[in-house]
Amino acid sequence: MSTESVYAEFTAWIKQVHLLGTVGELLGWDEQVNLPPGAAEQRAAQQAALAGATHAAASDPRLGAWLKVLEAEATLTADQRAVVRQARRDYDRATKLPAEFVQAKAAQGSRGYHAWARAKAANDFAGYAPVLAQNLEFAQREARYLGWGGREYDYMIDRHDPGMTAAVIARLFAELRRDLVPLVRAIAASRVRPRPGALRGFPVEGQRAFLREVTAQLGFDYARGRIDVSLHPFCTGTGSDVRLTTRFKEDEPLDSLFSSIHEAGHGMYEQGLPAAHLGTALGIHAGMAVHESQSRLWENQVARSRGAWRGWEPRLRAAFPAQTAGVSSDELYLAINEVSPTLIRVDADEVTYNLHIILRFELEQRLFSGGLAVADLPGAWRESSQALLGLVPPDDRVGVLQDVHWSDGSFGYFPSYCLGNMLAAQLWYRALALRPALEEDFARGDFTWLLGWLREHVHTQGRRHDALELCRQVTGEELSPKHLVRYLTERYGKLYRI
Amino acid sequence: MSTESVYAEFTAWIKQVHLLGTVGELLGWDEQVNLPPGAAEQRAAQQAALAGATHAAASDPRLGAWLKVLEAEATLTADQRAVVRQARRDYDRATKLPAEFVQAKAAQGSRGYHAWARAKAANDFAGYAPVLAQNLEFAQREARYLGWGGREYDYMIDRHDPGMTAAVIARLFAELRRDLVPLVRAIAASRVRPRPGALRGFPVEGQRAFLREVTAQLGFDYARGRIDVSLHPFCTGTGSDVRLTTRFKEDEPLDSLFSSIHEAGHGMYEQGLPAAHLGTALGIHAGMAVHESQSRLWENQVARSRGAWRGWEPRLRAAFPAQTAGVSSDELYLAINEVSPTLIRVDADEVTYNLHIILRFELEQRLFSGGLAVADLPGAWRESSQALLGLVPPDDRVGVLQDVHWSDGSFGYFPSYCLGNMLAAQLWYRALALRPALEEDFARGDFTWLLGWLREHVHTQGRRHDALELCRQVTGEELSPKHLVRYLTERYGKLYRI
Repeated sequence: MSTESVYAEFTAWIKQVHLLGTVGELLGWDEQVNLPPGAAEQRAAQQAALAGATHAAASDPRLGAWLKVLEAEATLTADQRAVVRQARRDYDRATKLPAEFVQAKAAQGSRGYHAWARAKAANDFAGYAPVLAQNLEFAQREARYLGWGGREYDYMIDRHDPGMTAAVIARLFAELRRDLVPLVRAIAASRVRPRPGALRGFPVEGQRAFLREVTAQLGFDYARGRIDVSLHPFCTGTGSDVRLTTRFKEDEPLDSLFSSIHEAGHGMYEQGLPAAHLGTALGIHAGMAVHESQSRLWENQVARSRGAWRGWEPRLRAAFPAQTAGVSSDELYLAINEVSPTLIRVDADEVTYNLHIILRFELEQRLFSGGLAVADLPGAWRESSQALLGLVPPDDRVGVLQDVHWSDGSFGYFPSYCLGNMLAAQLWYRALALRPALEEDFARGDFTWLLGWLREHVHTQGRRHDALELCRQVTGEELSPKHLVRYLTERYGKLYRI
Repeated sequence: MSTESVYAEFTAWIKQVHLLGTVGELLGWDEQVNLPPGAAEQRAAQQAALAGATHAAASDPRLGAWLKVLEAEATLTADQRAVVRQARRDYDRATKLPAEFVQAKAAQGSRGYHAWARAKAANDFAGYAPVLAQNLEFAQREARYLGWGGREYDYMIDRHDPGMTAAVIARLFAELRRDLVPLVRAIAASRVRPRPGALRGFPVEGQRAFLREVTAQLGFDYARGRIDVSLHPFCTGTGSDVRLTTRFKEDEPLDSLFSSIHEAGHGMYEQGLPAAHLGTALGIHAGMAVHESQSRLWENQVARSRGAWRGWEPRLRAAFPAQTAGVSSDELYLAINEVSPTLIRVDADEVTYNLHIILRFELEQRLFSGGLAVADLPGAWRESSQALLGLVPPDDRVGVLQDVHWSDGSFGYFPSYCLGNMLAAQLWYRALALRPALEEDFARGDFTWLLGWLREHVHTQGRRHDALELCRQVTGEELSPKHLVRYLTERYGKLYRI
């Protein structure tokens, strides 16, 4: 058989496997949005059956044979090599883990979630510690099964961000930490403070219409997506079926608006992947850092800008005249850009958020290197929290027990959030250099140049390059925290008069 | 390995296959209810990938080996034998059709739909005839692949209603036809006529609340199901996740109400299947005739009864005081029980509906026996329509081209609708014999006795018995049209004063 026809059969197969994965994602969406309360068990059984069928397809021996042929083939194009490389990652992950290990880990993940929820409610870290130690052990074994012995934490990071390493992150975060801690302290000390509860009583239907208008204007295509309500906002799906969720509180209209814009940023990335290549490396996202760069760029650099609000403020006032009557433009803009250190990551503003991530990264690194025992985590957390945020959690519920991630062994995920913030800022300044009048576009409700630029240089690239290479290609520079520091200093330094 | 452990492995496997089928159903539901307009192609690709994975599981050679062992095993219980029998049907269907045939038939099904839609719009039966002939040929080949050579139409019927045959149906329908044609003529000649447009301007939100209250009262469990809006009403899902759909028109409140009750009847059946056996013959429905008997019983015998409306009428009036002010109780009840022969099956009332089915069955029978050429269908349709309904379609759009079913080769499906009506009436009189005060229960809003009785004697039986045997077991009699004739005569004879 010719290389060409092997390559065609091979890509057809991996696209099928990917499609099965998207079916699983749709089941997950449906579970959060639609599932009748009594159907949880049946849905878990459906997901398990689908996971079994997907695994059977992903580990099919024909795939292994095709990969061997293609890896030995010298005539492949660079794009084809990228596709083969990604498929090899997926195939190894599907075939190199012993079935007993996969089962034991899945069971542990489920136990872990419940142990975490119980421990958090009871402020009982000691009750959770053995589960966490077990998760750490599973993670390290998994890394070794896949050939990452001695670089276990790099493996955990690479799962979410292909090509990224702990050493690179450590260097970037150290620099960011150095510059960000003083900025957060200065903002915290500022006498400028948003007026609490300035925005109240926004009816849900009005919020829904407003955020739909805003996200459509930014460029989220509702002919290829939708938005619904769930407990926690998220984005799922890809290509021509991308689904966002949000939640509504009458007294927190900015929460639903900005979480929707954030998810729409993810969604526009997925909608911008090249349809013909969905499921291969040319048609999947480049990793979680790049994904977060898209959500954060739209949420922060764009949607918290003066320019965007010159366009949106009149429309917000027209839609909610009574609710906005007593709120000045400056008050509104300050509410949109509130900065206030908090103990809780998910409540954090865009400045301090990065410090929450640095804290978790540093602890994960020490856990994986053996330099920190699980039992010593709460103390280490409190110390870091003091050093980074200037706040010490009064108990573990608002400290080391606050996040769900570690309960099912999702180590190495946190750094993506902060890497995404860095990349977003770096992309932003590159875009501004190319089109200085960007905020004037926004004021007119025109976001098309920016979306077009991202489409061309980020979205349609798929996973051809890892995050670091993509950054070089698009911005002409190595990924660096200096752009994020510059952006935060410019925007918040002025606003908080520091 | 012991028989017991073979049986356990075997049932675990067929439950997985069934779960994958339910995932496909959920994708279908989502397509009708949620799918963004631009996502049709991607959804088709997801369905195809899932169908491939499901087929791989359904045709797994291990299943064939287990079946051989179990079929040779003398110690199985009757329940176990029923499970093995059904699994054999499914396994043969998954393995005995050549892959090329399955692909060709799927492509033909899709072409067929478009050819039908085009032909219907253009009133061009001649353009559709070759497709129909091809569908007929595919159906006959499929029957022969599965060992039904010489009994091809029986195969088509058996697919939907295990155990049913054309000969049985022909006998039942002939008797029904004999009694029903004069009844329909008499009603059509009656001077009693519902007032057109008596019910107008019912706001959608109010309709939604009312039908939800009614269906919940009948016994549809909204903790294990939901109702949404789609273009055509349907019911899908099983066990603890059953999904109904309806549609709303402000000037046709009875349309959404009764279609919802119909679908809720299907849904209560699915909710009543024994959860522990979902996916085996003990936990799937007994065929489409029994399924229709459940939807029709709730929709017609129950929800069009005087008793039920003694309870509901005051609530309808309270919910819609202005809309019902000028409508007397008799007018309301007559609107609920309107009978008027029409050319279009889906618009037909419960009396004439059966004649539409008899017409289609008789034509299908002649098509499969070779006694009728596809080219002669339109003429045969017009003749039958005159004989059965006393109406001749002015063109094929409202005649032979009206139904989608044949366009993808779904022959043998129509009879289930009418068999279901027969069984519903027979179940109804059996229930009344056991509890004569049934309508007094209904008037109090109490439908629990009837649901409990159906749960015990129909729902929890799964597919242990075919429709004919189930009928014997529950009613003590052979399935017969006489109960349907009696019911229609009693209800409509009185109402239309004939």
